[in-house]
Amino acid sequence: MNFNYHLPVNLAFGRGRFAELGQTTATWGRRALVVCVDGSATRPGGFVDRACENLQAAGVTPTVFSGVVANPTFAVVDAGVAALRAADCDVVVGIGGGSPLDAAKAIAFAALNAGDMADYIFGRVAPGDALPLVLVPTTAGTGSEGNGFAVLTDTRTGDKKSLRGPMIIARTSLIDSELSQTMPARVLAATGFDALTHCFEAALSATANPVTTAQALSGIRLIRDSLPALYADKLQAAGSVDTSAGEHERCTLPADAACVLWDKLAWAATLGGMAIGGAGVTVAHGLEHPASGLKDITHGAGLAAITPAVFELTLERADGNLRAQEQLGALAGACGLDSRDALPRFVREFLADIGLDVTLGQLGIAADDIDWMAENALKVSSPGIASHPVPFDIDDIKEIYRRSL
Amino acid sequence: MNFNYHLPVNLAFGRGRFAELGQTTATWGRRALVVCVDGSATRPGGFVDRACENLQAAGVTPTVFSGVVANPTFAVVDAGVAALRAADCDVVVGIGGGSPLDAAKAIAFAALNAGDMADYIFGRVAPGDALPLVLVPTTAGTGSEGNGFAVLTDTRTGDKKSLRGPMIIARTSLIDSELSQTMPARVLAATGFDALTHCFEAALSATANPVTTAQALSGIRLIRDSLPALYADKLQAAGSVDTSAGEHERCTLPADAACVLWDKLAWAATLGGMAIGGAGVTVAHGLEHPASGLKDITHGAGLAAITPAVFELTLERADGNLRAQEQLGALAGACGLDSRDALPRFVREFLADIGLDVTLGQLGIAADDIDWMAENALKVSSPGIASHPVPFDIDDIKEIYRRSL
Repeated sequence: MNFNYHLPVNLAFGRGRFAELGQTTATWGRRALVVCVDGSATRPGGFVDRACENLQAAGVTPTVFSGVVANPTFAVVDAGVAALRAADCDVVVGIGGGSPLDAAKAIAFAALNAGDMADYIFGRVAPGDALPLVLVPTTAGTGSEGNGFAVLTDTRTGDKKSLRGPMIIARTSLIDSELSQTMPARVLAATGFDALTHCFEAALSATANPVTTAQALSGIRLIRDSLPALYADKLQAAGSVDTSAGEHERCTLPADAACVLWDKLAWAATLGGMAIGGAGVTVAHGLEHPASGLKDITHGAGLAAITPAVFELTLERADGNLRAQEQLGALAGACGLDSRDALPRFVREFLADIGLDVTLGQLGIAADDIDWMAENALKVSSPGIASHPVPFDIDDIKEIYRRSL
Repeated sequence: MNFNYHLPVNLAFGRGRFAELGQTTATWGRRALVVCVDGSATRPGGFVDRACENLQAAGVTPTVFSGVVANPTFAVVDAGVAALRAADCDVVVGIGGGSPLDAAKAIAFAALNAGDMADYIFGRVAPGDALPLVLVPTTAGTGSEGNGFAVLTDTRTGDKKSLRGPMIIARTSLIDSELSQTMPARVLAATGFDALTHCFEAALSATANPVTTAQALSGIRLIRDSLPALYADKLQAAGSVDTSAGEHERCTLPADAACVLWDKLAWAATLGGMAIGGAGVTVAHGLEHPASGLKDITHGAGLAAITPAVFELTLERADGNLRAQEQLGALAGACGLDSRDALPRFVREFLADIGLDVTLGQLGIAADDIDWMAENALKVSSPGIASHPVPFDIDDIKEIYRRSL
């Protein structure tokens, strides 16, 4: 064994802890840029309003930057930095799903590091420090609150790739499952499956260590226990006649049972983020990024289209590879399976259970896109692809895309 | 679930990584106080010599303070601070078992915090910062490298209690099982059992969280897998005719298998330290500290004398306590047992396997000492005792001591 485990974030986990945002942020600054997506979070009385009130009560002046889009671009980061400079902010608060959290990280970084972001992402320029970050996830998926990754898309090249480093690990992440509980069913499914693939990929990575493997396998068990039940409950509640209740209240499970499940899923998502922070992602993320970089696909849906074929081809190539068999066996065990051979079917059935059995074709990818996507996957994700337990070359990558169409 | 997980230490784990000491320490300072115990570590060519050479090669000037004793006292800390000031040190390196690591933490703290250490330990004065710390464990037991505890003895009162806080979490801990591999068999047994009790107590603590519980249960499995086998090997090797080999080489296991076992034990010890860092210790440590505070007993031996009776009385009181039964069941599972009722016998047999089946009487404690020890346990350890899954009052504590005599 040889590894480093260094994750200086303070993970503050618990229902109701969103109320600690002001007090926590006041430790790090007096003027906060609140990075979010314009939408349900920014409606009156929504999460962003609540965040701003809470910050103000703690003596922190908030400036809202709601210009984040799904799959955030360098232009989003530039606009965020401009807003930050105009308000002279000294701390960055990210609130929302993966896109605003990753954008918050990139803005906190770009505020102290001039030049082209791509140079930092591809390691051509050594990164410096970042402004202090406080992150509040409102989905249970990205895990961005538990690592030093920020996924960005360079629209000049279509490259979707992570800025990485300890400087963009949050000082504090507030993980309050009361926030993620209000997700619509399709967001729950897509973000929850993203979290599951983080755990899958970290558990299979060649750069896994005992800490990341334990995190990943624990995350898989928690997601199995919680995500399908919560999705089913969302659907059942959506079909109920009482539409006067808020989304938060529309739940048919007993309140105590629901809290336990939402906590499990929220913690699993953070575990997935922590696990990939140490072990990295491998093939499914490596192959999904070109797809969502090209077509602005929801990340979790893209992963859902690709992951079954990744498992199929991996198992076909695992003969005689004892290390791969061992890792796949541990992963299958965490999935409650007796054999690794059951993994592709398990994943397909799991996706059907959460309404996410989609193909790349349904998401807008055509056979003609495969050559560019395969080349781009090797350009932006070759280290992750190389960390997969069986080697995949460009023809294998094209085969996975073809099976996923 | 409601918890904070914040452990900013960089755990650098791996055989041979002791060689990174100078480079790591140079990140934090130019003049290092090297805190250690005078003995095998300070012999020519020993760990301290190697540490100093390595520091010097990286441009760090070492000053050795070898005045640490087992169960370090405030006087040791004062002497360490005097040595630190005389050499104008700006970073503290602790190398050895629990005593020098904890002394290093306390010295790094006392260098920046004037007054009586007891005031900080008992929370009468709020603690400030500490000098940066780099820790190198040479036993697999204390786990001090993975938390912000430093156990100290106040000779004025006999109180043995932890200074606690994030300021004394190491910046980097180098965990290199090549160092712990050279422990004599009796040190291996005592320190390894200390690590096991850290895991036991963290798994049972009322302040446990999902992170600390996973760390604790994983630590138990790793210690079961490694400690008895390594102890048996030490005994067998000690009896072998080839006394020309160094202690390091005196091993009958194949080298690869030995490396795996030493790595498992070293990582388990760090997991135990991490687990108690979040969950705290409970009854066995709470009752052992008065014993070793009074008679300068080896900490692991004191724990060995007390732990079986703690399990006995806990099981006798667990009827109808579902939470306690659940925690004891999980702990029994990690021990490979079908039932929690098998725990006392498992612990006694485990102790016999590692030559540590001792009583408090054999360690110098008399029946007359019990009243003071019970009162002192409640004075210094009442929060930990209150975190045990079944309540124990002073009469119960006396009963545990009586059964352990």
